Amino acid sequence: MSAHHVVVVGAGFGGLETVHRLAGAPVEITIVDRRNHHLFQPLLYQAATASLAPSEIAWPIRQLLRRRRDVTTLLASVESIDKAARELHLDEGSTVRYDTLVLATGARHAYFGHDAWEPFAPGLKTLEDATTIRGRILLAFEEAERQSDEQRRAALLTFVIVGGGPTGVELAGTIAELARDTLPTEFRRIDTRHARIVLIEAGPRVLPAFAEDLSNYAKDALEQLGVEVVLEKPVSECNADGVVFGGQTLAAATILWAAGVQSSPAAQWLDAPADRVGRLKAEPDLTVPGHKEIFAIGDAAIVLRPDGREVPGIAPAAKQEGAYVASVIRARVSGAPAPLPFQYKHAGDLATIGKRRAVIDFGWIKLKGAPAWWLWGFAHIYFLIGVRNRLSVAINWLWIYARDQRGARLITWWGGEVEGTAPFARAGQADQDGSQARRQGTS
Amino acid sequence: MSAHHVVVVGAGFGGLETVHRLAGAPVEITIVDRRNHHLFQPLLYQAATASLAPSEIAWPIRQLLRRRRDVTTLLASVESIDKAARELHLDEGSTVRYDTLVLATGARHAYFGHDAWEPFAPGLKTLEDATTIRGRILLAFEEAERQSDEQRRAALLTFVIVGGGPTGVELAGTIAELARDTLPTEFRRIDTRHARIVLIEAGPRVLPAFAEDLSNYAKDALEQLGVEVVLEKPVSECNADGVVFGGQTLAAATILWAAGVQSSPAAQWLDAPADRVGRLKAEPDLTVPGHKEIFAIGDAAIVLRPDGREVPGIAPAAKQEGAYVASVIRARVSGAPAPLPFQYKHAGDLATIGKRRAVIDFGWIKLKGAPAWWLWGFAHIYFLIGVRNRLSVAINWLWIYARDQRGARLITWWGGEVEGTAPFARAGQADQDGSQARRQGTS
Repeated sequence: MSAHHVVVVGAGFGGLETVHRLAGAPVEITIVDRRNHHLFQPLLYQAATASLAPSEIAWPIRQLLRRRRDVTTLLASVESIDKAARELHLDEGSTVRYDTLVLATGARHAYFGHDAWEPFAPGLKTLEDATTIRGRILLAFEEAERQSDEQRRAALLTFVIVGGGPTGVELAGTIAELARDTLPTEFRRIDTRHARIVLIEAGPRVLPAFAEDLSNYAKDALEQLGVEVVLEKPVSECNADGVVFGGQTLAAATILWAAGVQSSPAAQWLDAPADRVGRLKAEPDLTVPGHKEIFAIGDAAIVLRPDGREVPGIAPAAKQEGAYVASVIRARVSGAPAPLPFQYKHAGDLATIGKRRAVIDFGWIKLKGAPAWWLWGFAHIYFLIGVRNRLSVAINWLWIYARDQRGARLITWWGGEVEGTAPFARAGQADQDGSQARRQGTS
Repeated sequence: MSAHHVVVVGAGFGGLETVHRLAGAPVEITIVDRRNHHLFQPLLYQAATASLAPSEIAWPIRQLLRRRRDVTTLLASVESIDKAARELHLDEGSTVRYDTLVLATGARHAYFGHDAWEPFAPGLKTLEDATTIRGRILLAFEEAERQSDEQRRAALLTFVIVGGGPTGVELAGTIAELARDTLPTEFRRIDTRHARIVLIEAGPRVLPAFAEDLSNYAKDALEQLGVEVVLEKPVSECNADGVVFGGQTLAAATILWAAGVQSSPAAQWLDAPADRVGRLKAEPDLTVPGHKEIFAIGDAAIVLRPDGREVPGIAPAAKQEGAYVASVIRARVSGAPAPLPFQYKHAGDLATIGKRRAVIDFGWIKLKGAPAWWLWGFAHIYFLIGVRNRLSVAINWLWIYARDQRGARLITWWGGEVEGTAPFARAGQADQDGSQARRQGTS
């Protein structure tokens, strides 16, 4: 192809937005992702807690882009980048040349030097993570139903969530509802309402990005749901027995990690400057220093606002960055002057705490309780990309709302446990390199 | 518990029907399954071809039975049976005593002495099988899009289905529609409409259980969809390169096995007489010879009709057997005379060949084409157990009908391939013992 070739790596919110905003521009586009699907990450915790099915929050990338004849979708992993030759080396030995490269490769959860905790405390970033967590939560109740030892049963009915950001708060609230509202009538030997759900946050309050009164409301709402909220207690150990924080040990079979992320290896591909968690330093025009033809956006990049604060790692920010990059590319290929530096507009923060409770912080207005929850629900259904999925998600939510039944409570071997390893003490298979989702070389 | 204790092993159509029909009887019931879900097997091929999501055709067993206070659900695998002590030994070392035992343990696909073919030609019996097959089909198209070698690309776009029964016919028809109607606009380098779908049947016609003119209609309908139907050619080899039949080799990256089943190990547990595929011989009252307190039903049993023909291995037969066993148990515990021997009533056979084409053989009336398809659709939606699922499935089908979009086209690592093994030439992980879905001992 002789047209200017834009290669986008990563079909998350940022990468897809770049592609969408380049519609009609005189460029050829290739989008590369190691998964075949775009994932609606803000609802991933619902897949992890059996409220939504994986296919309700993920869509094939090439289906989303099927009408764009200028876009080629490749299912592939990047192995390395040759900046001089402007070439991307993919697995299986194939090579893609670019004129402009957009790195929108996202992040994984991270353990900050405690990678040994991962088998005991899986994090939540991919569909596989979600089904792993779903399987663990459901299996803990199944185990408890069969268990005659009181102490072990108590550990099986103890769920610890590490990290009090939106993901941790949403997981804790939903697990509490599962135990309190969905499961009680189904078990004969245990009372699932006695399950302990413990949310541990190292800082002084949950939802630290929100206004303080919303944090306090969220804590109260969690406690009303029966969640124990532990603040200012960093976790010092996760293992097969449970979790250690503030000098005390809590026996727990299920520990979920919602305490931090690590960027993709994009900085290593480029041998470029990155921060502690691996995010590429981005210039004001979102290019990588010294390489005007390479952009870094979303969770793969650290972008500073004029006042020195970081642009947050949330979907709307990634989309704004994707749109900005498209505008820069458009200006370049048409010879127009470069746009002004990227400016982030913070729309607000949202988090739900179970049914009928949510907090929304728009800055100029703060909402909490039922109105916030309904607004959150409508906003998320609106933002879901597929029309059919919107309807299906709406039906599922109304069903849960009305009947407390959850539609996706499957334990399958991929969400379950692996033979020959100790219970609740194995590496989540999904935590292995996601490139497993791809097959090895055939060429 | 001092009441008569009925233990049902297996929550398929037969086992669940036994439990349903024992409602209100003066017995305590325990249902044991190594999966947490009941699977609606007649629609499993739709999950394997991305038309329906796994959670639309499977429901948690304990959710289905939540209102039955007389029923305890256990997620467990049977290790052995002590007939003298009337005890079931479960994994993890626990024991369940029974007064009456109902074995409804089902079947797996079988390779008739060619187990080495399994890695190359996965079968379809579980949800994991379905996601494995879904992943392989979708990955073959993805591979082909990236592949520059013509020969390899042709193999990647060749899909072989071995076995011309309803499952084989339904798989072939749906894959043809996927290639012809759903995918063409999404690929840039390949034309998915050129995919070859080859159905190989060893016998003289497809759908051998149906009337001959319906078989002929099905063959014509498949061919109209672009499926190549090969008859009277037994497959003599499946390997990483493809399939050998009738002396010729067909290069194919995807081979699906729909040619036979093997019963569960229930006969080994009992050390009781079984047929070639492991089915327990059942007496006219569906008990196991010499053990009036043990029943065998569904695919776990071979039941002969008065004229010597076998009761077929289909869902309605399993349900009739389950209902009959419940009536025998009811009579016994109430001291009533034993019911007459089991009598199977054959309602009919149904199979679909893609959109708008189906065959129904009720014996007294035969239907084909669009009327049969609509009847098939309504019947299946009606029989789906969950009300919400009915609606969701109906929406999905209407969507596919109207738009040719399929909702569950996810490739995930569990449906994909495993690192370090050759492409399309590895044991489907799901083919390992299903007990992997369960964790090992904690007691």
